[in-house]
Amino acid sequence: MRILLLNPNMTTSMTDQMVEIARGVAGEGVEIVPLTATSGFPYISSRAEAQIAGALVLEMIAEHREGIDAVIIAAFGDPGLVAARELFDLPVVGVAEAAVMTAALLGDRFSVVTFSPHMARWYTDCVEATGLQSRFTGVCCPTTAPKELSSIQTKMRGDLIALTRQATDKDGADVVIIGGAPLAGLAPLIAPQASGILVDPVAAATLQAIALAGLSPSYARRAGRPVAKKSTGLGAPLAALIAGD
Amino acid sequence: MRILLLNPNMTTSMTDQMVEIARGVAGEGVEIVPLTATSGFPYISSRAEAQIAGALVLEMIAEHREGIDAVIIAAFGDPGLVAARELFDLPVVGVAEAAVMTAALLGDRFSVVTFSPHMARWYTDCVEATGLQSRFTGVCCPTTAPKELSSIQTKMRGDLIALTRQATDKDGADVVIIGGAPLAGLAPLIAPQASGILVDPVAAATLQAIALAGLSPSYARRAGRPVAKKSTGLGAPLAALIAGD
Amino acid sequence: MRILLLNPNMTTSMTDQMVEIARGVAGEGVEIVPLTATSGFPYISSRAEAQIAGALVLEMIAEHREGIDAVIIAAFGDPGLVAARELFDLPVVGVAEAAVMTAALLGDRFSVVTFSPHMARWYTDCVEATGLQSRFTGVCCPTTAPKELSSIQTKMRGDLIALTRQATDKDGADVVIIGGAPLAGLAPLIAPQASGILVDPVAAATLQAIALAGLSPSYARRAGRPVAKKSTGLGAPLAALIAGD
Amino acid sequence: MRILLLNPNMTTSMTDQMVEIARGVAGEGVEIVPLTATSGFPYISSRAEAQIAGALVLEMIAEHREGIDAVIIAAFGDPGLVAARELFDLPVVGVAEAAVMTAALLGDRFSVVTFSPHMARWYTDCVEATGLQSRFTGVCCPTTAPKELSSIQTKMRGDLIALTRQATDKDGADVVIIGGAPLAGLAPLIAPQASGILVDPVAAATLQAIALAGLSPSYARRAGRPVAKKSTGLGAPLAALIAGD
Amino acid sequence: MRILLLNPNMTTSMTDQMVEIARGVAGEGVEIVPLTATSGFPYISSRAEAQIAGALVLEMIAEHREGIDAVIIAAFGDPGLVAARELFDLPVVGVAEAAVMTAALLGDRFSVVTFSPHMARWYTDCVEATGLQSRFTGVCCPTTAPKELSSIQTKMRGDLIALTRQATDKDGADVVIIGGAPLAGLAPLIAPQASGILVDPVAAATLQAIALAGLSPSYARRAGRPVAKKSTGLGAPLAALIAGD
Amino acid sequence: MRILLLNPNMTTSMTDQMVEIARGVAGEGVEIVPLTATSGFPYISSRAEAQIAGALVLEMIAEHREGIDAVIIAAFGDPGLVAARELFDLPVVGVAEAAVMTAALLGDRFSVVTFSPHMARWYTDCVEATGLQSRFTGVCCPTTAPKELSSIQTKMRGDLIALTRQATDKDGADVVIIGGAPLAGLAPLIAPQASGILVDPVAAATLQAIALAGLSPSYARRAGRPVAKKSTGLGAPLAALIAGD
Repeated sequence: MRILLLNPNMTTSMTDQMVEIARGVAGEGVEIVPLTATSGFPYISSRAEAQIAGALVLEMIAEHREGIDAVIIAAFGDPGLVAARELFDLPVVGVAEAAVMTAALLGDRFSVVTFSPHMARWYTDCVEATGLQSRFTGVCCPTTAPKELSSIQTKMRGDLIALTRQATDKDGADVVIIGGAPLAGLAPLIAPQASGILVDPVAAATLQAIALAGLSPSYARRAGRPVAKKSTGLGAPLAALIAGD
Repeated sequence: MRILLLNPNMTTSMTDQMVEIARGVAGEGVEIVPLTATSGFPYISSRAEAQIAGALVLEMIAEHREGIDAVIIAAFGDPGLVAARELFDLPVVGVAEAAVMTAALLGDRFSVVTFSPHMARWYTDCVEATGLQSRFTGVCCPTTAPKELSSIQTKMRGDLIALTRQATDKDGADVVIIGGAPLAGLAPLIAPQASGILVDPVAAATLQAIALAGLSPSYARRAGRPVAKKSTGLGAPLAALIAGD
Repeated sequence: MRILLLNPNMTTSMTDQMVEIARGVAGEGVEIVPLTATSGFPYISSRAEAQIAGALVLEMIAEHREGIDAVIIAAFGDPGLVAARELFDLPVVGVAEAAVMTAALLGDRFSVVTFSPHMARWYTDCVEATGLQSRFTGVCCPTTAPKELSSIQTKMRGDLIALTRQATDKDGADVVIIGGAPLAGLAPLIAPQASGILVDPVAAATLQAIALAGLSPSYARRAGRPVAKKSTGLGAPLAALIAGD
Repeated sequence: MRILLLNPNMTTSMTDQMVEIARGVAGEGVEIVPLTATSGFPYISSRAEAQIAGALVLEMIAEHREGIDAVIIAAFGDPGLVAARELFDLPVVGVAEAAVMTAALLGDRFSVVTFSPHMARWYTDCVEATGLQSRFTGVCCPTTAPKELSSIQTKMRGDLIALTRQATDKDGADVVIIGGAPLAGLAPLIAPQASGILVDPVAAATLQAIALAGLSPSYARRAGRPVAKKSTGLGAPLAALIAGD
Repeated sequence: MRILLLNPNMTTSMTDQMVEIARGVAGEGVEIVPLTATSGFPYISSRAEAQIAGALVLEMIAEHREGIDAVIIAAFGDPGLVAARELFDLPVVGVAEAAVMTAALLGDRFSVVTFSPHMARWYTDCVEATGLQSRFTGVCCPTTAPKELSSIQTKMRGDLIALTRQATDKDGADVVIIGGAPLAGLAPLIAPQASGILVDPVAAATLQAIALAGLSPSYARRAGRPVAKKSTGLGAPLAALIAGD
Repeated sequence: MRILLLNPNMTTSMTDQMVEIARGVAGEGVEIVPLTATSGFPYISSRAEAQIAGALVLEMIAEHREGIDAVIIAAFGDPGLVAARELFDLPVVGVAEAAVMTAALLGDRFSVVTFSPHMARWYTDCVEATGLQSRFTGVCCPTTAPKELSSIQTKMRGDLIALTRQATDKDGADVVIIGGAPLAGLAPLIAPQASGILVDPVAAATLQAIALAGLSPSYARRAGRPVAKKSTGLGAPLAALIAGD
């Protein structure tokens, strides 16, 4: 089984880190195929950037889908997720959505703990996009954004552990998603001290991609496929796919 | 006041027709500035196409926003609407959203009448995107899609009038949106026979764009503006805007 | 175009102030026709008072609707709004509802900032009446009510500006409605310091009334019109209308 | 215990019939005090009429509340219910709301069966006003309105029984409210043939009024009481109450 | 009329206290029949315990339903309520659900005040189970759990009164449910000092059980009755009922 | 990895069939451990039966959890699911919930196709329990129940295929869950003819159990664990667990 781990950000060090997490949870016989965006933004952090990156995601999948069993879209806001599901005949998961669904399978209510107040609104939007807001107890985050991101897994560890306790004890969460790319891989490290059942989004997305591929869903007669049509200005693989060639 | 009527489809005849409707409802002193996409698709009819077109919409607004007081995004699914609102310091309306909001201001419950069952799901999605689903009584449409679109305003007139009656009498709608680009401008023509208070989406979007521009909203200290950042592969005006230049 | 600005409160100084705001945003060719209640209450501030005032609103519109293109109901809680829409063949807007709809067209999430905690519950009810609660981030207000209302635009200015910042930074609002009759007209004055895109309810209602009138909605065959019936104790114009005379 | 059965319609024969039902379910020691409107409408059947009648309801309760333990508002749409609860220091129930709440206590999902399609929208609104729409399976009614109302309990009996079966077997209701003034008292008569657990709204409202009065709720320190204020044009008892005299 | 007050907890002193409350609000002619669980748990305080106790509740009703007109399930979380309604041909109410429905009939919005933060999540779940979350303003409770429960009605009285004020003044509740078995019977005692209209759950459940029994609902042709079937390991009365014997 | 496939029904042939499906999708290194109830009901088909069976499920897991990595509860209505998640320190999935979550990861909207109208209400309840009703397009089923269940995979095949088409074309579903124990394993067989992306609930639950176990969630410091307590009448393993021994 081959899973395409597609990073819509242009930062390959992020891809490397996520690939390591994915390979850590994927069983034998699962190959994680990394792919990093070569245009767009170093990192996506707004809706406008996600609109643009989402279009690039479609180009990237169109070009690299040969021999792939499922795709992980691994960036802020699952850019292009709904469009990719409509267009391609294979399972596509986003890290935010997969984290939410996995959390909802592990407990009744879930929270998100993250490193900056700027992420709170975005995670709330991500949960609403799944439809699971009735089981969401909110985002717990520090009141100010950290100055520097590269060392936050170390420096903020105590604060983040305290936030998981707030999520469970004050807000009533059973499960806590540790969200945000700079915190990728932290969940298993703090699990012995943190409160609640922790979920790492990249790990969750990897396992969900494997689960969906394992179902071997038939796309032969799926509904809602867009009608074939000509286009202008798209990359050749995507243009060919949309044209029905 | 200058309103940019941006057609994300590449079909200029559609733009011409919409400009005529817009000019018909805009009062004196309002200039409607037409703009038609030069890449993308002849007409957008899927989520994947809307993802791509939405990115193009951002490029188009970035390039043409000089001297503009408000923007109308005039295509299937309001592509790029949320991203454009986040990025640009002026009011942006989508035809679908504006039709829904206008309908909700004219009566308690509203319906959409359109020409093809393929549009039902899409309009339902559009209404949900606004948050007003509790006031929506559903889509009324024929059971099969018409073979040919250019003459449907004439040939389907009787059927569409019957559908407005179904919307009001069976579903309980007060207001009926006549939706779908091929039906643009039909609402006032069938109003004497049709049931309910009719809304034409392009007319509604034009009037809402004028209303929002008339409020002269101050964007000087608005919240949630994305941080400036470099990008790769974008058109120069959009790249400069995002870079904060 | 003639817009009836109907104040269901008996206080003419409030009417005067609202007329000034309305005229400030209405373009040329729009006449604002003021009308102040001559029975009922000096100012409406409860549901019971709104029940009574709403019945008076119907009497007032019935008596003064000749030559009017749209009506603004300008009091606490949009009294009589739903009933008036059912009864009269012209657009009717309420200031609270119009502010909410306008806010939802300017950004994704909106908040209300007001001057007293006693208003919080009421504004929440107003938002729920529109159906847009999923886009509402709540009311921001001081913890205690001000002693004196006539000078609050001056004395509370700093506090209100701070509340707009709370609405955007803590609650995640994009748009902030400055609500409450004593704050009418304040939004544009504090916009340079306040956070978020500000909406003045009277200005929003005026522009929405103009937009709806500009659509020239046909009421000829609208649905849900009450059957004609005799009544006892109503004013003559309303009784005649209800009797179908 | 004395329960005021207030009919906001001017038709005393309706009052008589409802009093008979109320007395049939009220135990010993409960006195049903009838009161019929002397202004307004012979029967209320629109939102505009309910707006006006709701104001009259406040006048009627203000005048007749001496020695009363709870009030039943017995007309189409529970006119004035929310306002009356805010204003008066005693339990007030509406027949529509009480039927819905009682149905939700008897089973998981409930439906409304009524005699005319014109009532469907209204009952849906009544259910939404309670907040219990997630447990509501909809209205079942004939496709056309009956010509004549006085004999429908006899002539439509078979049709109404069939509609209860549709409510339970097709829509999944456990409980069926037999709604509409012309059907008052029918539920126990058709229970041996009809499907589901049946609820008569007047009986339900009577029993709920007794239950609430039996709780002897203390209104001494209740919240949200409107501030005292002068008024113009109200009846003396209501004006005095609102003035805090 | 005979009402079975079924305590799924094994603690008879709790049963005694609840019977006293029930008898205090039940009128003449109503007999309260107490029944205490003889297996299960001394007190139920988790979902797992409620799952087990709910099965015991079915056994208890099956064994003791002869001559009973309605059943009150009087324990944490209304264990077995939905199952009992499906299985038995008589009204069954739970104390939590009855408190919520009664509160919603007394005012527009309601809150729960209780003695420990551990109960907050549970009460929220109870409200969601009724479907009335849109009228719920949340739980008000101390930040830490009390050490000792037997004397909390005396020692925490001032704190609980302060919490009712928070419920009404800060959260906007009209009605306040005083929840939790150790607080049973407290509501009328603190009503002169507390804020809002208070509801005692056991009193509310008793009055609702009487109201539902007073409706004499016909179960002869109710829908959704499970098909008869053999079972293994159940008590004889329940097994016989399920077998249709 | 060892997955306990727990059948709360007493019918071992059902267990055998489900084990075969589970083993078909589980990769190498996953052991499926079957367990069939020895008390309760031959098959569970009501809420009352699910209440009882859910208690038995807790006993069964308590007795057999040694060396197990995740549990599948494989019966009508996921009996005991929420209670089991609260009580045990390992992932527990229900077939209905897992099917719904998997469907929501494969497409935007999902439907359930099943063999009998009696199942429609139950599946609707299952979807509501997950919180995903906003993405659910309803149940498609024949209008009457089949006489005989053992051969329905063959005899109803054409009808079920037609129902998948109704789910996608009329209701707008992208994904179709083929629900109901007698249809287990049918989804991949009809996929070449059926419409939409099909989901088999047992396969989905197996893959989700593997995914959750693969995450190795830490239960060491999870929240909401019930306090230790003595019990009466429970099986020894469950009693010991609840007593904290």
